[in-house]
Amino acid sequence: MTTWTNLTPMAKIEVVVDGEDVPAVRDLFLEAGATGYTTVSGLSGLGHDGYHQGQLLFNDRASLSMLITVVPMERSEAVIAGIRRLLESRSGVLFVSETHVSRPDYFT
Amino acid sequence: MTTWTNLTPMAKIEVVVDGEDVPAVRDLFLEAGATGYTTVSGLSGLGHDGYHQGQLLFNDRASLSMLITVVPMERSEAVIAGIRRLLESRSGVLFVSETHVSRPDYFT
Amino acid sequence: MTTWTNLTPMAKIEVVVDGEDVPAVRDLFLEAGATGYTTVSGLSGLGHDGYHQGQLLFNDRASLSMLITVVPMERSEAVIAGIRRLLESRSGVLFVSETHVSRPDYFT
Repeated sequence: MTTWTNLTPMAKIEVVVDGEDVPAVRDLFLEAGATGYTTVSGLSGLGHDGYHQGQLLFNDRASLSMLITVVPMERSEAVIAGIRRLLESRSGVLFVSETHVSRPDYFT
Repeated sequence: MTTWTNLTPMAKIEVVVDGEDVPAVRDLFLEAGATGYTTVSGLSGLGHDGYHQGQLLFNDRASLSMLITVVPMERSEAVIAGIRRLLESRSGVLFVSETHVSRPDYFT
Repeated sequence: MTTWTNLTPMAKIEVVVDGEDVPAVRDLFLEAGATGYTTVSGLSGLGHDGYHQGQLLFNDRASLSMLITVVPMERSEAVIAGIRRLLESRSGVLFVSETHVSRPDYFT
């Protein structure tokens, strides 16, 4: 794994949901201790959850949003747990990746 | 490399192309076994492929799209191979990163 | 860390700033040797820098943009240094991640 001078590893959490679920995801981020997030709206896509949607598999959905937050590793499990519970009843996907930031105090 | 409890490593494949090539990328994703994707449209940018475009290097292009899919590692080579062939004749870039998901069955 | 056949590791640098700072980030990318970038505009979000903004913490900002560039590892420190200096006086966040590309010559 590459490292960068003076950068701190963090967890980048991306959640793609229907637009109507954006407030729920945002609230979960903040309740779990995230200090910020970015929302990309107006996405389109085919759900990775086609298996669960049966014949809707090839039905493209408009008005998806992706919410992105970056949190310290030790806080990431709480964020992930909250999103997982939400996605038990709502359509959406969750991606968690390693990233690095220059000012870790902004995220804590 | 950091690991997360109960998350499964996957390949995140991002492709930035002109809007007119979105259907071709989408078809390649699905033919190679991806179960979903997300499209971010209306991007602008300067092609990383300036070297190949000569004097168009500093000519910003509007109407780019980024298509994102997440597939199991063992399926990623097939997706990548398809996109590489497409990009032999079309402008665009391909990024492949490691990510982690909570419900791997959604992606297989 | 997973590796992919015939892909080359690169640094993916993402910067979220107010729309008015997009030209400054773009110029820093190119001055530091990036050969391209992609801009996602029209984002909304809550600044990760709430700590520094006091009572603006819960004031969502519209018109954010995310600029994404991919550069060789050995060039990434120069790009990061330029963005860090910019963010000393401007709001914004910087994320650096490892990604992989199929045509490294496009990025050098």
